[in-house]
Amino acid sequence: MSLLIRHAKVLQCPSPGAVRVLDNHDVLIRDNRIVSISPSGSAADTPDEILDAHGMLLMPGLINCHSHVPMVIFRGLAEDVSLEKWFNEYMWPLESNLQEEDVYWGMLLGLAEMIEAGVTCVADHYFFMDRAAEAVQQAGTRAALGWAVFGNQGTAALDRTAQFCKRWNAAADGRITTWMAPHAPYTCDDDFLRAARDRADELGVGIHIHVAETRGQTEAHVKKRGITPIRLLDDLGLLRLPTLLAHAVGATEDDIRLLADRPAGVAHCPKTYLKLAMGIAPVVAMRKAGVTVGLGTDGAVSNNTLDVWESMRLMAMTQKEACGAAEMMTLAETLHIATRGSAQVVGLGDRIGAVEPGCLADLILVDLNGPHHQPLHSVPASLVYAARASDVHTVIVNGKVIMRDRRLLTLDKADIIRQVSRSLERLSRRVPESRIQVYAP
Amino acid sequence: MSLLIRHAKVLQCPSPGAVRVLDNHDVLIRDNRIVSISPSGSAADTPDEILDAHGMLLMPGLINCHSHVPMVIFRGLAEDVSLEKWFNEYMWPLESNLQEEDVYWGMLLGLAEMIEAGVTCVADHYFFMDRAAEAVQQAGTRAALGWAVFGNQGTAALDRTAQFCKRWNAAADGRITTWMAPHAPYTCDDDFLRAARDRADELGVGIHIHVAETRGQTEAHVKKRGITPIRLLDDLGLLRLPTLLAHAVGATEDDIRLLADRPAGVAHCPKTYLKLAMGIAPVVAMRKAGVTVGLGTDGAVSNNTLDVWESMRLMAMTQKEACGAAEMMTLAETLHIATRGSAQVVGLGDRIGAVEPGCLADLILVDLNGPHHQPLHSVPASLVYAARASDVHTVIVNGKVIMRDRRLLTLDKADIIRQVSRSLERLSRRVPESRIQVYAP
Repeated sequence: MSLLIRHAKVLQCPSPGAVRVLDNHDVLIRDNRIVSISPSGSAADTPDEILDAHGMLLMPGLINCHSHVPMVIFRGLAEDVSLEKWFNEYMWPLESNLQEEDVYWGMLLGLAEMIEAGVTCVADHYFFMDRAAEAVQQAGTRAALGWAVFGNQGTAALDRTAQFCKRWNAAADGRITTWMAPHAPYTCDDDFLRAARDRADELGVGIHIHVAETRGQTEAHVKKRGITPIRLLDDLGLLRLPTLLAHAVGATEDDIRLLADRPAGVAHCPKTYLKLAMGIAPVVAMRKAGVTVGLGTDGAVSNNTLDVWESMRLMAMTQKEACGAAEMMTLAETLHIATRGSAQVVGLGDRIGAVEPGCLADLILVDLNGPHHQPLHSVPASLVYAARASDVHTVIVNGKVIMRDRRLLTLDKADIIRQVSRSLERLSRRVPESRIQVYAP
Repeated sequence: MSLLIRHAKVLQCPSPGAVRVLDNHDVLIRDNRIVSISPSGSAADTPDEILDAHGMLLMPGLINCHSHVPMVIFRGLAEDVSLEKWFNEYMWPLESNLQEEDVYWGMLLGLAEMIEAGVTCVADHYFFMDRAAEAVQQAGTRAALGWAVFGNQGTAALDRTAQFCKRWNAAADGRITTWMAPHAPYTCDDDFLRAARDRADELGVGIHIHVAETRGQTEAHVKKRGITPIRLLDDLGLLRLPTLLAHAVGATEDDIRLLADRPAGVAHCPKTYLKLAMGIAPVVAMRKAGVTVGLGTDGAVSNNTLDVWESMRLMAMTQKEACGAAEMMTLAETLHIATRGSAQVVGLGDRIGAVEPGCLADLILVDLNGPHHQPLHSVPASLVYAARASDVHTVIVNGKVIMRDRRLLTLDKADIIRQVSRSLERLSRRVPESRIQVYAP
C-alpha cells in the first residue's frame, strides 16, 4: 500500500535551534513508513491513494508523554482544590469506584479526544491495562503502556504488571510498547522499586514513574531520607534503564546534572502544574544541561483535556515567564521538544517525531486556513501560539489514515460517549474512606 | 421579531461566589432583548424563529475588554523578543506601514475570528477607527471603540479622535460606543492627558488607556515622577471618569486601593504577559479589594489570537500559580469575571454579560458534545478548562443571529482573507528607523 500526500507545507525540526517549513512538497508513504519527501510534482510513483494537502501543514503526530487516559471518566470532578485534597479527597476515593469496563470505555473516549486533537501516540500509566491495550488496538493509534502499581499491593501485583508488559510489547503491528509502571517513590518502598527495576531489566522494557512532582515533595524526601527522590531512583538502579519520569517539577540542579547523564526523559505537563499550583518545572535548565524533555497532559482530572497543543503553548509561555525573559523557549526549541523530544521520551526517538524518509508514518495535517491563523506570516508561530486541536484535519498512524476531514474512521464516538455516560452517577460517587492510597509524601 | 432558544442549558453567574446551570430551559428574545427564561415547554408565545439548543449551553457572548483588532494583519511577526524590542524593533516599525485600508480589512478579519470564537463585543484601541467602526457595523457585533493617539501628535490629533467619538457613539443600532484613547502615560504628557480627560468629559464618554503594563514601568515612573502611573492618572483627573485601564500588571497595593474607589475597570490580558515575560498581574488582590476586572486578548502580535476562552483559562491558572494556592480563582469567580466583570469594564454592565430578562441579547450557544467535554460532570469546569473557540456553535448579537452552526452570516471570510493576504509582503516590511514611537518608559 502506498499513500501520497500532495502539495503540503512540511514542518521539519532538525535541531532545537532550527525549524523550517518546506512549501508545496509531496510526501510518499509506503506501508507504514515515509519513503520520500520531494517538491510537488517530482515523484514518479503512482500511489494507491492520494491526499490533497493544499493549504495544510504536514507535521509529526503529537505525542502525549504522560497521561492516565481512562481518567477522562472523572473529568471536572476535582476543581479548585489543593494537591493534597486532590489526591486524598477526590482522585483516590473516586478511583475506588473504578471497574475494568470503565478503563476500556474511558480509554476509547480519551483516544477519540486525542485523535481529534492530532495526538498519535500516548505513554499511558493506569490500571486494568489489558483493556486499555484493546482500546489502542481498535483505535489504531500508537501507545507506550504501563500498568500502574503501588508498593502496598506487593510483588505479586508487580508480577502481574510484568506479565502485561510481556503480553502486549510489540503488539498491534508494533504500535504498542510496554513499560513497568511503579507509581512513585512516595508510594513504593525501596525493595519494591528494585523489584520493578529487575522485572523491567529482564523484559527489556523501560520504567514509567512519577517523581519529584513538586519542590515540596523533593524537600520532604530530603528531610526523610537525606537524598532527593531522583537521586534515590538512581541509587536503586532505575535510572540505568530507559526511564520516563513524569513531572520532575522539583528537580534540583544536582538532579538535573544527574539526569543529563542517564537514559531518562522528563514528561512535562504544565497545565496540571498551573491548575494545582505545583510550581514551574525547570525546563530551560533541563534543556540547557541536555536532559531530554517531552510534552504530556497528565490525566483529565487535573488537565481537564488531553490536548498536547495546550501543553506545548503553556510550556513555552510559563518558561518565558519563569525566566523573566521572552527570548527563552523559542518557537524552534518548543517545536523540537514537541516532536523529537517527545519521541525520545517515549522511547521511540529513532522511529517517530519527524517527517523524514525512514520514519514511521505517524503524521497529521493541520488546516491553517482559519481566520485565527491568517494572514500566515509564520507557520511556527501559528503552530505554537494560534493552533487549536480543532485545526487538525487528518490523522495518519503507522501509515493508515484514522481521521479524515475530522471524521474518526476507527471509532464510533457517539457510542463511546453513550457507554461512558451510562455510568455517570456511579463514577461521581466519592467516599473518602475508600480511597485507594493516601498522599503523604 | 421574536426568537425562541429551546432546550438549552443556561449559565448564570449571579455573584463571584456562585455559578449555576439551568437545565432544559427556553429563552425568549424579542427584538434585541431577552424577555424570559423558563423551563422548556412552559412558554406560551409563538415565536417568529426557533433555535433548538439541545445538548448545548447558552451563555453571555464573550467580551474582549482590550484589543487592537486590526493588528491581526501583523500576526506572528514578533516572536521570542523582549518587550522593549517588541515595541522598538517590531511593532512600531511595522505600524509605520499601516494604511487606512489595512485597518478595515484587518478589523473584518479579527471580527470574523472573534465571532467564530464566541466573542460578541470588543473594546478596541487603534488607528483609523472610522474604518474599524464600518467593519463592526457590517459584522453585526458590539464594540467600544477608541482612536489611539500619542502625545507628540498634538491636541489637533486629539480633537480628531474626539470627533470620531461623537460621530460613532451609539451608532449601528446602539452597538457601537466610543471612548477617548490616549495611548499611555509614558507616551502622553500631563497636559495632553488632561486635554483627553476634558474631551471625554464634554462628550460623556470614558477613557481607554494603557497603564502600568509591567512592574518595571511602575518603578521607572516612580523614579522619574515620585508617584505611580496609576496615581498620576488620578491626579490628572482621569480616574474620575469611567476608565478602562489596560493591563495594570504593575499596580501597587496603593494603586489597587485607589482603583477600588474609582469608576475604573482593568482589562486583564494574561497571554501577552506570559509571552512577553511581563510578570503576573495582581488579579486576586484586585478582586479582593473590589476592583472590577475583565478579560482581554490584547493585539494578535503579542497574543497571536483573539481568543477570550484562552484569556479566561490563563487568568485562572496563572493566578492559582502566582498565589501558590489551587483554591484561588475558582470556577465561579473566573466565569463571573468573564461575563459580568468584562461587561462592567467595557461600560455595559447594566446591559450585557448575563442571561437575564431585560438584558441585551448578546448570547452564544456552546456545543458540549465533543469528546473533550465528556462525560459532562461539570459544565463550569468544562467552560473554564476544556472549551475551545471551535465549540461555539451559534452567535447572537443584539437579538440577531450572526453565526449559525459555525457559518458566519454577516461576513465573507474567504474574501476577507484574500484581501488581507494581498498585502502580506508590504505588511511584513520592518524599517526600525521609521517606527511610529519609541518605547522608553
